[in-house]
Amino acid sequence: MRLVSFERDGKAALGIREGEQVRVIGSETLESLLARGVDLVGYAREHASQERVPVSQIRFLPPLSRPPKIICVGLNFSDHTSESKYEQPDYPTLFFRVATSLIAHDQPMIRPRVTDSEGLDYEGEIAVVIGKGGRHISKDAALSHVAGYSVFNDGSVREYQFKTPQWTVGKNFDGTGAFGPDLVTADELPPGVKGLRLETRLNGEVVQSACTDEMVFDVESLISIISVAITLEAGDVIVSGTPSGIGWARSPKLLMKAGDVCEVSVEKIGTLRNVIADESAE
Amino acid sequence: MRLVSFERDGKAALGIREGEQVRVIGSETLESLLARGVDLVGYAREHASQERVPVSQIRFLPPLSRPPKIICVGLNFSDHTSESKYEQPDYPTLFFRVATSLIAHDQPMIRPRVTDSEGLDYEGEIAVVIGKGGRHISKDAALSHVAGYSVFNDGSVREYQFKTPQWTVGKNFDGTGAFGPDLVTADELPPGVKGLRLETRLNGEVVQSACTDEMVFDVESLISIISVAITLEAGDVIVSGTPSGIGWARSPKLLMKAGDVCEVSVEKIGTLRNVIADESAE
Repeated sequence: MRLVSFERDGKAALGIREGEQVRVIGSETLESLLARGVDLVGYAREHASQERVPVSQIRFLPPLSRPPKIICVGLNFSDHTSESKYEQPDYPTLFFRVATSLIAHDQPMIRPRVTDSEGLDYEGEIAVVIGKGGRHISKDAALSHVAGYSVFNDGSVREYQFKTPQWTVGKNFDGTGAFGPDLVTADELPPGVKGLRLETRLNGEVVQSACTDEMVFDVESLISIISVAITLEAGDVIVSGTPSGIGWARSPKLLMKAGDVCEVSVEKIGTLRNVIADESAE
Repeated sequence: MRLVSFERDGKAALGIREGEQVRVIGSETLESLLARGVDLVGYAREHASQERVPVSQIRFLPPLSRPPKIICVGLNFSDHTSESKYEQPDYPTLFFRVATSLIAHDQPMIRPRVTDSEGLDYEGEIAVVIGKGGRHISKDAALSHVAGYSVFNDGSVREYQFKTPQWTVGKNFDGTGAFGPDLVTADELPPGVKGLRLETRLNGEVVQSACTDEMVFDVESLISIISVAITLEAGDVIVSGTPSGIGWARSPKLLMKAGDVCEVSVEKIGTLRNVIADESAE
């Protein structure tokens, strides 16, 4: 099932995508449903109304606007680790995003007005949404903790990412973390989203292309390893890493400017599209 | 005014510390009050009941259990930067903590059971709680955005901190981020908590001692610089950095073990005390 969070009369609504239409379920958010331990597919079937809205008319929200945590994984494709001039660590490289950085499908991705930054870089990724929390989750049990998957563009302000030893600020500018459009429930996808093509396009040109099988730490490993340290909670999002092809590693650098169109597609999950816009002046 | 979050009949409660007693205000949390834009001092005066509980009988909660963000600042005392073998960056070194890592005053700080870690290290710090959110906050206006201050022990699992280029996981083990005991409203303290002594003691021995004037980026600079990138929200916590003296930089290393007592005192704010305990077996 493909679930869509969107705005309706100024408030959050949830629906089921059925082709070019969204069938309205109601106003309870995915974070609230997941926190209550509700089975999403059963709930959606039971509560789906007869009201349908054309996809072309909805204003998307991120599948979850306020996940308890957004855990990002760096250096999770070895060709990206090489282009980034790092040695491949034998443990996942983790950092957090915060909710203030999130934007939805079709919302502008914001290039900040700070003058000491050349631009904004793309990072196409798969987002894993946790359905059932836990700690010390075994690798065997890990996939039973996943509610579903979505697409993420981990928009990065590179000069800020590298101002200090920690990347966090360059990964958390307002309006840089694109998430959506749909949450595809795990039952619709290959276990652990194995064997899927991930592709990023900038103004129609393919700039990143990889298979999820190339991930250094697969989805079940990430869940198991993270949960050794950190309690995962229902609604947490794991942004699982980007392959090679980022603009910052190119010569000359390819960074996004206002008006550029960035799309991240993951086979069977969907296409996340954002137009770049400059931050408004003060 | 000194506000205390504590557990009462299994639920969160808020009170005013009056010497050795806590005067009960009610059950609305500081995060909820701050999100509603309530002036804490005025609210507390208006809603304080006549019920008082001895401090010795309460079970503390962190001042805020679920802040929207917990923004930590690394390398913010130059002597700590030197002992950590980093060059001093000319921008704050930011990373996030998540709420699952938080513990309260008097709760055990948890040494994880992972076998590839020698122990747990202390980092005494001052926590700045944002009262009024904003973006692009000027340095001049920054202190008007602060609701109050508290004490933090940024407990760090050092081997995990350095497993990859990003410190995040070593800073986010469950039960390692001690926060409290009181939120002291900003009106009771010197502006920007300037000129206060910060001291960490392990089993009674002073292991860190510094003056807040030594911070590379003071509180107003942190708020202003962070808000260039990230919208600050009411209830956000900025954990403002630790001075030299950490156990990991000593020779031999001084790491905490079960039964150790770690205290962080900040002049005029209070003393945060935690006993170290091993994580329970599976």
